[in-house]
Amino acid sequence: MKKAYREMTREELLKEQAALEAKYQEVKAKGLKLDMSRGKPSKAQLDLANGMMDVLNSDSDMKCEAGVDCRNYGIMDGIPEARRLLADMSEVPEKNILIYGNSSLNVMFDTVARAMSMGVCGHTPWGKLDKVKFLCPVPGYDRHFGITEFFGIEMINVPLLETGPDMDLVEKLVSEDASIKGIWCVPKYSNPTGISYSDETVRRFAHLKPAAEDFRIFWDNAYSIHHLYDDDQDVILELLTECEKAGNPDMVYKFISTSKVSFPGSGIAAMAASEANLADARKAMFYQTIGHDKLNQLRHVRFFKDMDGVHAHMRKHAAILRPKFEAVLDTLERELGGLEIGSWVKPKGGYFIAFDSLEGCAKKIVARCKEAGVVMTGAGATFPYGKDPKDSNIRIAPSFPEPDELKMAAEIFVLSVKLVSIEKYLLEKEGVCC
Amino acid sequence: MKKAYREMTREELLKEQAALEAKYQEVKAKGLKLDMSRGKPSKAQLDLANGMMDVLNSDSDMKCEAGVDCRNYGIMDGIPEARRLLADMSEVPEKNILIYGNSSLNVMFDTVARAMSMGVCGHTPWGKLDKVKFLCPVPGYDRHFGITEFFGIEMINVPLLETGPDMDLVEKLVSEDASIKGIWCVPKYSNPTGISYSDETVRRFAHLKPAAEDFRIFWDNAYSIHHLYDDDQDVILELLTECEKAGNPDMVYKFISTSKVSFPGSGIAAMAASEANLADARKAMFYQTIGHDKLNQLRHVRFFKDMDGVHAHMRKHAAILRPKFEAVLDTLERELGGLEIGSWVKPKGGYFIAFDSLEGCAKKIVARCKEAGVVMTGAGATFPYGKDPKDSNIRIAPSFPEPDELKMAAEIFVLSVKLVSIEKYLLEKEGVCC
Repeated sequence: MKKAYREMTREELLKEQAALEAKYQEVKAKGLKLDMSRGKPSKAQLDLANGMMDVLNSDSDMKCEAGVDCRNYGIMDGIPEARRLLADMSEVPEKNILIYGNSSLNVMFDTVARAMSMGVCGHTPWGKLDKVKFLCPVPGYDRHFGITEFFGIEMINVPLLETGPDMDLVEKLVSEDASIKGIWCVPKYSNPTGISYSDETVRRFAHLKPAAEDFRIFWDNAYSIHHLYDDDQDVILELLTECEKAGNPDMVYKFISTSKVSFPGSGIAAMAASEANLADARKAMFYQTIGHDKLNQLRHVRFFKDMDGVHAHMRKHAAILRPKFEAVLDTLERELGGLEIGSWVKPKGGYFIAFDSLEGCAKKIVARCKEAGVVMTGAGATFPYGKDPKDSNIRIAPSFPEPDELKMAAEIFVLSVKLVSIEKYLLEKEGVCC
Repeated sequence: MKKAYREMTREELLKEQAALEAKYQEVKAKGLKLDMSRGKPSKAQLDLANGMMDVLNSDSDMKCEAGVDCRNYGIMDGIPEARRLLADMSEVPEKNILIYGNSSLNVMFDTVARAMSMGVCGHTPWGKLDKVKFLCPVPGYDRHFGITEFFGIEMINVPLLETGPDMDLVEKLVSEDASIKGIWCVPKYSNPTGISYSDETVRRFAHLKPAAEDFRIFWDNAYSIHHLYDDDQDVILELLTECEKAGNPDMVYKFISTSKVSFPGSGIAAMAASEANLADARKAMFYQTIGHDKLNQLRHVRFFKDMDGVHAHMRKHAAILRPKFEAVLDTLERELGGLEIGSWVKPKGGYFIAFDSLEGCAKKIVARCKEAGVVMTGAGATFPYGKDPKDSNIRIAPSFPEPDELKMAAEIFVLSVKLVSIEKYLLEKEGVCC
């Protein structure tokens, strides 16, 4: 059993610091260039979908099930077989799905943009209102916060617990404040903490009584099928169904894509929502596009065939990702366990591990990592406006580096955590408040 | 030499009407289903690019010239080779090009959307202004007008002459009214009249002195390489260069895509503009997308290689389109020449023939065509708000039907034109004003 740093004497800390600093300088001298900053699939993962390049060739039948030539204009909603596949992936009936372009980020951006300029289902365009606010469970996904910041939407932090957002707070805020128009959610294998929302959380979402009739839950199901284990998977309640049961069918927009199933940026994406919400979305889509890339839809459906095909494919991803997650988690556990200088959740899926350092240490840890050649997601990025009030959350993305690189990167990370934590304790012992 | 209808006596008109009506009923009885409504490539045209399906397969090198794996995140601006190809197609240096998604309509929509929410180069967002206006050369492209109508932008008609928009009027309006923020242009083989802007028109555009600093010319170069003839092609001055020379480098956004080069909806698109404008566009793009479909960019570049490849490909399109245009033009000339009940320009490229009927006849002609099984673009569609003040412009799209269908469709069209024109003259002779 290791001794927690906060229980060490000044001398013990100084001794530990000297040893760690020597190690750190040694690693730094190697001039490494490692990247754990983004949830990027590795080459091996991308190779899994290479067969998709072969399913369409110049001799292929390019007609979709509707008999329409996918090479030409037409079918704004997506080809039937792609609608069916993404409906299955979203766990909704086909009538509740609308296919979009290449990634769900665009769909979310477009959805907020549309609400700003056209309003939601006949309500006043958000852009015409004095104040529009979004609830942001934190830590969360930087690109969600980026979208709302871009449109000048005020963001309010809501703590993300192990069961999902703090629903007491969510219920209170949305029922009291009609300027709150939305909430960003990654309900399964959350970015970055990896937690999945409990059934109670989902049901409380479905039963929200927002003051704003045009309040919408932005349910980014980015990692719905991105399990790491075959025998230990999170299952979350399907929100659209729960909303229907609760008499709130229009309260949710679900987003999904194959970005991390096939190819980032070259996938297909969809929104799942009530028919009223989809009709609203189609109004803007009619002006925005002559139709999304149906050949890419066809390519995806012919490659994956159905959800069995998708799940089989995702198991191959898991086989590549699992050892990487475990390498990082093992290093964290082995090197930091018992030191009481950080905490993390062991995720069962998704793309990230979230590390919470001692308060006021995250920026310094990320800087230390960078100095030794390891790029982490910028500290603060997991909070609106890039401001982590406690400066403690760091997102670790283990997917992209090769296994040997990853081990080195993880070593540098824990070294940095230890060094910055010791510094903090030493300053405290010297009576310097941080 | 045929006798013009307006010079015919009541009796002559009635006799002609009876003969035509009999013919019309005969054709109607066939129960045809023909479509000349949209600028849709035919199957034969789409087949031309089928080879694009073969250039990437599971064994291909998926790296672009920048060394980046096109299957993964990264390179927001477009891969270098695609930037170069679309820069060449846009006749601008590579630094002036930004690659977008699958079609230029989306890029134009996004550009207006961005101006609405974020403003243009630091100016007040258009959405925050009481009034925003666009000039709309008419007849024009319905989907342009759709975008501006969607965003609540007031549209002002400007006559499109054979040299381009009426520049006296354009110069006057933009210099007097700071709420005029843009103008829609299809400078080459214009949609729908087929005319190309004269050098003087382009230079006058470049020298505009708009009252609004954030005024932009929306230059939709949709048909820049879509010639019908090898030896008789329109050439227009390159506007960005002219704007630079005139000290107005930031006044133009050029749009281009391969929608009607490769596959509609599955092409690649770009905006060409000054570096200041592109920097402005990138700010929004950063929030909007994780990057466009680089595999599709790669597919396009590896298939076309360079502009020689593109031009060779466009000659194959022309070989298919030319006889179709000529079939329609021949029918118009043969059947309507001398009757003085309509006029049209013989286009040397693009996708459309615009027919101007006698005043107040367009809607009725389109209805007559529909009754006999031929769908035309709705009368009025070529004007903002769908309102053609003279009810005379009809857009003919000859690309999609097969040659034999097209001949029948053209026959039905001229029959309808004749019948509706006779009706008009008969009513006039009876002293009924229309």
